[in-house]
Amino acid sequence: MTGSGRAHDSGRASGDTTDPTDTTDSAPRRRRGRPARTEAAEGPGTREQILAAARTEFAERGYDKTSVRGIGKAAGVDAALVHHYFGTKEQVFAAAIELSFAPALTMPDAVAGGDEAGVGERMARFMFGVWENPVSRPALLAIMRSAVTNDTAAAVLRGLVERRLLHRVAGELHVPDPEFRVQLAASQLIGIAMLRYVVKMEPMASADLEEIVAMVAPTLQRYLTQP
Amino acid sequence: MTGSGRAHDSGRASGDTTDPTDTTDSAPRRRRGRPARTEAAEGPGTREQILAAARTEFAERGYDKTSVRGIGKAAGVDAALVHHYFGTKEQVFAAAIELSFAPALTMPDAVAGGDEAGVGERMARFMFGVWENPVSRPALLAIMRSAVTNDTAAAVLRGLVERRLLHRVAGELHVPDPEFRVQLAASQLIGIAMLRYVVKMEPMASADLEEIVAMVAPTLQRYLTQP
Repeated sequence: MTGSGRAHDSGRASGDTTDPTDTTDSAPRRRRGRPARTEAAEGPGTREQILAAARTEFAERGYDKTSVRGIGKAAGVDAALVHHYFGTKEQVFAAAIELSFAPALTMPDAVAGGDEAGVGERMARFMFGVWENPVSRPALLAIMRSAVTNDTAAAVLRGLVERRLLHRVAGELHVPDPEFRVQLAASQLIGIAMLRYVVKMEPMASADLEEIVAMVAPTLQRYLTQP
Repeated sequence: MTGSGRAHDSGRASGDTTDPTDTTDSAPRRRRGRPARTEAAEGPGTREQILAAARTEFAERGYDKTSVRGIGKAAGVDAALVHHYFGTKEQVFAAAIELSFAPALTMPDAVAGGDEAGVGERMARFMFGVWENPVSRPALLAIMRSAVTNDTAAAVLRGLVERRLLHRVAGELHVPDPEFRVQLAASQLIGIAMLRYVVKMEPMASADLEEIVAMVAPTLQRYLTQP
């Protein structure tokens, strides 16, 4: 398990130039995305279709049990085309969770948009907004399941969260060790998500959201602003 | 996923009387433990041997992929003997995680033993003591993995944690909604465990423990003692 989330950074950007003959399912080294574009030749919706199938497959089976072949089958295309668009299984996963994670990726703006005295509460409300949403919750649960059971999936999630959430929120803070502070705040919210949505322990699972926010917001506020 | 952790309460107590002919691997309803004792007839170490094998199998394969047959094989006994001692797969799992969880089960005493002003810090230090221990950490990781990926495993863990940790710690507190408060504190610690030990996100993964305790203890203190 290596901390190379950064390697996925441009895995989905168009125009990457990598070896188009490399179709290994799960290469140990990090490749840089899909081969040169030929998207038009395949039809404009193919990439989206594969991505939707990948998202469903990973959500239902978890990282370990999902294969590029299975994703191709679910999308009605050859596995080679999945490799063509996304690269390795790891890279398909990165693209799929980026899609699933999309609702969470506006958090930095939500947290930054307002006075400093309300930053803790805004972060808490944002997180619960995403988790309480019946559309985004299953995708988040699926991501957590894959990350907890598979080191590669954990590395991909780590990369995405670091790059798209933590660095950006940390950049808004005026405290020592801002990344550590953001992670303290994140850990409080992740722990509540575990108890409330994953393990479903009472009374947390059915506690009133306002009660949770009232208790948790001061904690986040302290982590994010106390010098 | 039903909240019936309570059903496991006496699953391991000796002398339970249940139908000894029921050897289903994973019964949907909750049975109450193993049949009447005949332990002496099988040799005194057999039960412990099966339990150790179960613990290893669940830790290595996760709940889903572990079978009573496989546990029997690993212990060098017939699957029927596993059922005989423990009951269903769910009940073998309950016994195995109770064993893995043993180091954590003294938390209520550790938390209760001292002045109220130090309760948050004691809880934090206790949790890190268990997670930083190279003997107990793999077992805790295995429990988390099973609970996150399987609803039955989650229910078993929930029952154990509620009965052996939360109720007992809550009983020591002088705050409104003590169980909710304990879960708030637990959620903070669980979230840090997720970032530090499971997803291994930096800087949390290698942050100095004293720094984490210094930030987190006041949070726990507030949850556990503020009226």
